[in-house]
Amino acid sequence: MQIGMVGLGKMGGNMAERLRRGGHEVVGYDRNPAISDVGSLRELVDRLQAPRTVWVMVPAGDPTRTTIERLGELLSAGDLVVDGGNSHYRDDQVHADRLGARGIGFVDVGVSGGVWGLREGYALMAGGAPEHIERLMPIFTTLKPPGEDGFVHAGKVGAGHFVKMVHNGIEYGMMQSLAEGWELLEASDLVTDVLATFRSWRSGTVIRSWLLELLVRALEEDPHLSELKGYAEDSGEGRWTVQAAVEHAVPLPAITAALYARFTSRQADSPAMKMIAALRNQFGGHPVAS
Amino acid sequence: MQIGMVGLGKMGGNMAERLRRGGHEVVGYDRNPAISDVGSLRELVDRLQAPRTVWVMVPAGDPTRTTIERLGELLSAGDLVVDGGNSHYRDDQVHADRLGARGIGFVDVGVSGGVWGLREGYALMAGGAPEHIERLMPIFTTLKPPGEDGFVHAGKVGAGHFVKMVHNGIEYGMMQSLAEGWELLEASDLVTDVLATFRSWRSGTVIRSWLLELLVRALEEDPHLSELKGYAEDSGEGRWTVQAAVEHAVPLPAITAALYARFTSRQADSPAMKMIAALRNQFGGHPVAS
Amino acid sequence: MQIGMVGLGKMGGNMAERLRRGGHEVVGYDRNPAISDVGSLRELVDRLQAPRTVWVMVPAGDPTRTTIERLGELLSAGDLVVDGGNSHYRDDQVHADRLGARGIGFVDVGVSGGVWGLREGYALMAGGAPEHIERLMPIFTTLKPPGEDGFVHAGKVGAGHFVKMVHNGIEYGMMQSLAEGWELLEASDLVTDVLATFRSWRSGTVIRSWLLELLVRALEEDPHLSELKGYAEDSGEGRWTVQAAVEHAVPLPAITAALYARFTSRQADSPAMKMIAALRNQFGGHPVAS
Amino acid sequence: MQIGMVGLGKMGGNMAERLRRGGHEVVGYDRNPAISDVGSLRELVDRLQAPRTVWVMVPAGDPTRTTIERLGELLSAGDLVVDGGNSHYRDDQVHADRLGARGIGFVDVGVSGGVWGLREGYALMAGGAPEHIERLMPIFTTLKPPGEDGFVHAGKVGAGHFVKMVHNGIEYGMMQSLAEGWELLEASDLVTDVLATFRSWRSGTVIRSWLLELLVRALEEDPHLSELKGYAEDSGEGRWTVQAAVEHAVPLPAITAALYARFTSRQADSPAMKMIAALRNQFGGHPVAS
Repeated sequence: MQIGMVGLGKMGGNMAERLRRGGHEVVGYDRNPAISDVGSLRELVDRLQAPRTVWVMVPAGDPTRTTIERLGELLSAGDLVVDGGNSHYRDDQVHADRLGARGIGFVDVGVSGGVWGLREGYALMAGGAPEHIERLMPIFTTLKPPGEDGFVHAGKVGAGHFVKMVHNGIEYGMMQSLAEGWELLEASDLVTDVLATFRSWRSGTVIRSWLLELLVRALEEDPHLSELKGYAEDSGEGRWTVQAAVEHAVPLPAITAALYARFTSRQADSPAMKMIAALRNQFGGHPVAS
Repeated sequence: MQIGMVGLGKMGGNMAERLRRGGHEVVGYDRNPAISDVGSLRELVDRLQAPRTVWVMVPAGDPTRTTIERLGELLSAGDLVVDGGNSHYRDDQVHADRLGARGIGFVDVGVSGGVWGLREGYALMAGGAPEHIERLMPIFTTLKPPGEDGFVHAGKVGAGHFVKMVHNGIEYGMMQSLAEGWELLEASDLVTDVLATFRSWRSGTVIRSWLLELLVRALEEDPHLSELKGYAEDSGEGRWTVQAAVEHAVPLPAITAALYARFTSRQADSPAMKMIAALRNQFGGHPVAS
Repeated sequence: MQIGMVGLGKMGGNMAERLRRGGHEVVGYDRNPAISDVGSLRELVDRLQAPRTVWVMVPAGDPTRTTIERLGELLSAGDLVVDGGNSHYRDDQVHADRLGARGIGFVDVGVSGGVWGLREGYALMAGGAPEHIERLMPIFTTLKPPGEDGFVHAGKVGAGHFVKMVHNGIEYGMMQSLAEGWELLEASDLVTDVLATFRSWRSGTVIRSWLLELLVRALEEDPHLSELKGYAEDSGEGRWTVQAAVEHAVPLPAITAALYARFTSRQADSPAMKMIAALRNQFGGHPVAS
Repeated sequence: MQIGMVGLGKMGGNMAERLRRGGHEVVGYDRNPAISDVGSLRELVDRLQAPRTVWVMVPAGDPTRTTIERLGELLSAGDLVVDGGNSHYRDDQVHADRLGARGIGFVDVGVSGGVWGLREGYALMAGGAPEHIERLMPIFTTLKPPGEDGFVHAGKVGAGHFVKMVHNGIEYGMMQSLAEGWELLEASDLVTDVLATFRSWRSGTVIRSWLLELLVRALEEDPHLSELKGYAEDSGEGRWTVQAAVEHAVPLPAITAALYARFTSRQADSPAMKMIAALRNQFGGHPVAS
């Protein structure tokens, strides 16, 4: 089918490519004229036949908000907007309401796949009305990996981004668990072949997983990760997971531990631990490192 | 090759069976005469040709200690004992020293596989001297899953149980991460199909894993787990992982969170939270539930 | 000085009383006519001489918002509104902007004191412009405990509620630490007099504190807290502390642990732990409690 | 009364001094002849009248074990040994058994006080038989702070060190809670006077405590702790608290978080976070800092 794609960066560009390979007609728009098929959002909308479908794949926050507002002005009743970016799930209902007031549909889609998606397919998690999801199924089917999994209609508007957010929260916790185990093995005098241990775990164990395979690949490149700094960004979705959990009074100790470990990794020095040092010094005359 | 197997319970019995299917001659001993090939440990030893190999597969702690001590009396220089149970890694050096004084070899093996092992193979993690590992390779090759993974010679005596322990620690953290994510999805009003969400994640996502597949299977049997109580035992290895980490000054926040969640799950009521309630009542006149 | 007090519940009523005892003229308004000095907010405003000061002491959220909006309509330029409730610090700037547009000042005050405040004084933490704080000093001086401490002008509008929020976060962590220690002592076979232990700690130790004194008082009433349930509400400020920390990328592992322990205490059964039980059952045939 | 004191370092020396000021006769022994009253342990024992009391105040572990073993050889039935060091509670029963076989009594005492103890008194927590505690009461009474608190007979042999250990665990959690709150206040744009905030909290708040007073003192010396490094040792007792909790299946999330924060503070770089960075790079092409 025909679809407009707004945002042709690493994610959007590859998704457009996968859609074209799958036989769809993609009209792409990007702020960068060198990679854009059209000169403006208006031109994009003009190039599409009604009822139109426009997939927005731009950074979360203001870029997404601005794009969707502009599309709300340009599109017509019966058209459909998809937000495939990493938006916060609360933004989705705002967008749906605003577009809905003009008769335009809205679907939010959490997309997982990173650099692997073009070749292997993108895991898709959608939220929205059944009739909108229905219309998008040819697109979803092409983007997702082959087989019966890799796509879900998770619930109402917002559900796509909500479940993608939780997916990432789980990912934080699983990565942290593997990383903690690796650190402990590296610290042991008994264990002399840590890489071979992780390699062996790829078969027959409870923890076999794609992350374990990536871990082995990373250790094959650099067996003690001596080339790396222990510094990890967080993408925002880990934070949102914890904040959503706090709102829902759901305890997330392992996932939160993973998020906090990332926060700590980015501190040149820990203010809290300065205070611990200061307090120890006050009550015990413990020496402080300065 | 020929091997003695001590302990023919769920694990040992199935391992003996997999070894026999693989062409090995297994002489099994169990306290339960109904399933034992021989009447005593002495008879087991007599039935084996020197140099003998005896695999001990009995509960960790006293049963394992007693069995290995008895074997130390019965076996001869050049024989080899394998502890395939869930022993603590510190016990291994004790056993190796005691047996070594009589010229008997010792290898510790962490075994993962549970109810799936007979059919799919057991993941094996071994610690010991290279020449002992070498002698056992025909056994390991039959027990482990097909393919290049599923077995590792991880290091010195103790390393097998140490890495198996850490494997289980990682397992605790990964399970907890998935469980937390599931609880948060269940708590959300937006998400209407949690089972379908987890199903879809089996393809194309970062968190695809065997545990995720088990989770889907569990939800297919009981979509909201309403038949279950939130009560989880711990096998000991999670505790040992945390204690070893504390000894090595390695922070394990996610894995420890998983262990503590299990502790809490087994308390009819939390003493600590009684104290929180009591304190709130003292300073704020907050009502307490009694 | 003269002041209007809106909300004469447990907190507001006692604060009005403490102000009166300190020689101030308090005109109180409450929705409950039985305890109200005036029949309406309008009447309250009419009774005060310009420039007026009105202290709002009603539940956080809608009641506070509605009250402040109404006061914005009734008051005049030069008047001053104080929000002494448990409002979120983000609400303060909204209120200050709205009132400021009409020339009305705004100060936020976090108030600690609970049932002890009337007699011993309330700890006050204020945010706002120096000239507004200045005007309120006679009120603050009467409300706060005697001595040089117990009051702070912490910063800009919002700072009062922010630091009160963090105070409560610290309180969560300190209470949890004491509660965990108590639970561990109760679990020990060696320790035969837990109450006497805590009593003794009131002198000469690093952990001597008001909370420790309250803990002793609680144990004196009920030595093993057998009359209580391990069920603890959270007042909202603990949640806000964690959410603010996540926003600021500040790791708060101990305070968050305390918050999550309260969440868990309120669950009849833990969904996450049901999932752990389900997963254990899937991979290991571990028996589940149902 | 008469007492021998073994170990005249910072703690033992000051305790001997406090005892002398209290009218006791102290014979001190230290490896350092410059500060020792006698030339050997044997000479110490010879100088004391039977039934003798010897207080051991040397570093935990081997020094304490060696000293107590040697005293076991030198002392006679009816004598009494006190271990006032930071020994692990499990060692106490070993010592008590060994000494008891020769008719010598044993009492373990956890001592808190640091640099403040000489002037203000030491908080003492004792474990042992009532008749031994009874004999030591004149000593305890002089060492402890004035007033009814500051000493407890907590239970059996081992209980003194156990409760001291838990005291320190609670201390870790309370310090961490304060440190986390301070870090969050420092991170806020709204709060302009963090030091004044903590100062004010010394009166009327729930968190008023000796640690809060020390915190204020530390900030008065260095308002943003810019002279300190965020590096904190742990004394061993925090680790033992967590290990004891794991053994007793008691969840200690806040105290453990405090311990792990110290571990992390001492790592030049976090191995676990290197792995997180490596994994992010593998699946997402996220840039890594190297």
